[in-house]
Order: sequence, then structure tokens, then C-alpha cells
Amino acid sequence: MQPIANAPRLTATLSEPVREIEIVDELGRRTIFIPAERALTVLVDDRELVTLMTLGASPELLVLGFLCNQRLIKNAAAIESISVDWRTSRAMVMTRPTLRDAHGALPRIVAGASGQGSIVPALMSQPDTVRLPGMAEARIHQSTLRRVLDIMRQHDSIHRHARSVHSCALFQHDNLLVSVEDVGRHNALDTVSGWMALHGIDGADKILFTTGRLTGEMVIKAAQSGVPIVVSRNGVSTMGYDLAKKFGMALFGRAVNRRFHCYVGAERFDAG
Amino acid sequence: MQPIANAPRLTATLSEPVREIEIVDELGRRTIFIPAERALTVLVDDRELVTLMTLGASPELLVLGFLCNQRLIKNAAAIESISVDWRTSRAMVMTRPTLRDAHGALPRIVAGASGQGSIVPALMSQPDTVRLPGMAEARIHQSTLRRVLDIMRQHDSIHRHARSVHSCALFQHDNLLVSVEDVGRHNALDTVSGWMALHGIDGADKILFTTGRLTGEMVIKAAQSGVPIVVSRNGVSTMGYDLAKKFGMALFGRAVNRRFHCYVGAERFDAG
Repeated sequence: MQPIANAPRLTATLSEPVREIEIVDELGRRTIFIPAERALTVLVDDRELVTLMTLGASPELLVLGFLCNQRLIKNAAAIESISVDWRTSRAMVMTRPTLRDAHGALPRIVAGASGQGSIVPALMSQPDTVRLPGMAEARIHQSTLRRVLDIMRQHDSIHRHARSVHSCALFQHDNLLVSVEDVGRHNALDTVSGWMALHGIDGADKILFTTGRLTGEMVIKAAQSGVPIVVSRNGVSTMGYDLAKKFGMALFGRAVNRRFHCYVGAERFDAG
Repeated sequence: MQPIANAPRLTATLSEPVREIEIVDELGRRTIFIPAERALTVLVDDRELVTLMTLGASPELLVLGFLCNQRLIKNAAAIESISVDWRTSRAMVMTRPTLRDAHGALPRIVAGASGQGSIVPALMSQPDTVRLPGMAEARIHQSTLRRVLDIMRQHDSIHRHARSVHSCALFQHDNLLVSVEDVGRHNALDTVSGWMALHGIDGADKILFTTGRLTGEMVIKAAQSGVPIVVSRNGVSTMGYDLAKKFGMALFGRAVNRRFHCYVGAERFDAG
């Protein structure tokens, strides 16, 4: 997969995704693996924007996706470079000068994201600014849904090793394009959005898989990346349900093996 | 349980915790219940502070606990009143005048909370400001751990009805004092913290139960409420582990039926 022309330079130092610790359980002492969680402070043109708590697997894509999904940038070309250094726990983002406002910097955001300090209210009041081009044709066949679930079940993962992480993946039909795990479901989805932005991927014929719940914010993020079909191993909230309906998406939850709930968009689903 | 002297006046209009929707599953059409998710915009002395995404079961306690856990107030007496109106989706917080700064308002916070836009970095740099008085004596017997898990398993809940919610509860030995469910684990914990602040409850001899993962922020919030022993049905992250160790807490995860992991503080655990 080729990055877009004018793609930002992305660099990141390495970090361990898991750590071995000694525990006591009902049988005695033993060691287990637990997932890493690190604080990553994002600076945009040397101004502090936000601190994200992340496993750290693809921090440069997480930052790019976060900027996109918070609507601070229109596309990846707005960014000159993102450079993550775990020794300082910082992500240095340099924008291309055309993007900056009169004061020479991005607007400072107040929002965090996941349920507390949310982007939802701003977008709820202007849902028409979320567009899903190609939505009309988007369909999913039951056999594709099953293949997606099979692939994700067999996928090598930190979850298998250390549990307690959320996974998010992008499919074209039943081809896995990218998958990522992080401590929170929002970060995992932001990272997939960052990967899409870097490669200029159109979401219209894609399927987004997540292990996380389909809350309002998760549905908005999928919609902003232009992906009309979302499949979750987990459930839905009323806000996720209402937004998916408003955007005309198809939303599947409780999807495990041959079982699923289609909450919204059953007319896009080809059973059998 | 009596509120503290000087307690804030708390009011909230009612809201439905669940909604019935029609879905398509692998067998055909049927109806299920899904949990509510609402945007609640918090205004402190008429200035907008943050928007929380919540199920809405105890929004006034959520707001109080959020203010405490974000360290915007020292205790509940700093607040004159909190009044939640779901018709406007607003929580109006009035502070007692002594609290306000030179500009007549609380500092505006940038932080959200759950993994994106975090209070952790500020507290990581000053962990000594989190105090757990009475910590030295805090112990938990295996039979108490089992009782706590039994009680929570049998507890009537939205989860049983609609799933997809997190639960948080406070115990004194094996007495359930309060329990709450919300869309996110942070909100559920903040609500319990709000209840403790309203009633002036000392956390030192309490046990906090949560269905959510023990990330850094969850451990910090428990510590800020003065509760040294935390039990989760879920796992732990490296940051949750490191902070609990630093604070001298006891941390249990994967706790279901007779099984558990004691990650930190095994010396406070009486087995058998």
C-alpha cells in the first residue's frame, strides 16, 4: 500500500507492547503478560494539544487519525511530519504552513474523546457535515460477515497474549487490510483512520471491525472515515444506533461465529 | 446514609435507562433492549466545562464525582447545587463563592478522561498528592472477595437487561453500599466517587468493585477517593499496575466466582 503524494513523514521509536509480571492467583504464584499503557503527549507546532493513553503499537498513525477524527485537519497532506519519541513520551506534529491560523497554530481542542470530553455534541449539531459517499451501493453478504469474524478470531494478537486490549480492523470484502490493538477502542479506531488517511483509502467499499461497543463516538469516527458498514463483537448504545440510522450505515453487533445482531441497515445485508 | 452538612442541592429529571429496538439476527426479526447514551453538557457557574456521554442513571452524582476526580473541587461542600435537566441535556453547577478564582469561575479543564485527554499525566508528575490514609491496615479476606463477586453477580442490573454497560460498586467488607451502571467505566467510577463525596464517606476500609479494566486512570480515581482495595472482573494495564504499586494499593483482576488474579498488594490478602 502506497502513501499518498505529499504524505507526512512518520517516525516512532519502538516500545514493548506487553510486560511480564508476577501475580498471585487462586492456585499460587505465577507470571502473566499484561498490555502496556503509556501516556503520549501530542504537541502540534510545539503547542501541547492532548495526552493520549495508548499501548503504543502505532503511535504515529494514532496521532494522525486522532487529528483527522477530531476534525483538526482535513487530510494527511495537512501534516508535514509526526515524530514519536517514547524516551520523552511525546509526539511532535509539524503542520504544513498553509494549515495554520492567524496565530500560527491549530486551534486548541478541549475535547478528549471516549465518553468523557466528547466530540459528539459538536457533530450531533452538524451531522450533515459527515458524508458517506458511495453509501448507496454498500452491501455485505452473510458469508463475508462470517469470514471477517473467522479471520479476526484467528488473528495473532496481543489480546491472545495479554488480553485487556481492544482490536480494530479494516476489511475490503473479506481481505484484511490493516488491524491494530490498543488499550481503548477509540485509540484503535483512530489508528485505523490514520492508516486510511496516510494511504488515501476510500471507505465506501470497506468494512470496519471492532471488539468495542458501538457508542455514538465510535459510529461517528467510522462515518468520518467514510466506512458505511461496521461490525462489532460487542453491543450498541442508543446514540450509536441513532447516529448510524441518521448516517444511513449498517451496524452489526454481538457478532461471534455464526451469530450477529443487525441493529441498523438490514436492507444492506444479504442473508443465506 | 446522611449527606454531609453543607451538602450541595442535587436535582435531576428522570430518563429511561434502556430502549427497545427491533433487530435482525441469524434467526430473523425480534426486539432487544439497548442501553441509553446521552450527551450531558456540564456548565459551572454558567461556563461550559465538558460534555459527558452517560447512560444518565445518576447524572448529578456523576457530575459531582467528575469534579472531584478531576481535582476541580476539594469536596462536595464547594458546590452549592447541581441541577440536571434532560430536556436541555445540561447540568448546571453552582459553586459556593469562596471557591471561585479572580475571574469568578473554576479553571477550564482541557482533559476529558478515558484514555484520550487524560488527567493521568498531571497526577503522574505529582503522585505524592494522592493520599490513602488508613492504607496500612487495609486487608481483604478471600471469603470477602467471594461474597463481593457473588453479590455483584446476583445484582439486578441494566447489564442483565440490555448488556453493554459497565458497573461499579462500593463495599464495606461484604456490605454493598452503592452500585451504579454507565456506558463507560470512568463514568461509573466517577458516580461512586460523587456518592462518597456527598456522604463524606472515608474510603480507607472500603472495597471498590468494577467490571472495567484497571487502567492508569481507573486506579488514580480509586486512589483519589481513598479506596485502597480494587477488584475488577477485567484485567490490568502496565500503568494501572505501576500506579497501584506506587500508591501501595491492592489490585485484583479477572475476578469471577472462585478465580482471581492479585496483581499488586498480595500481602494484604488473607487466603483460605
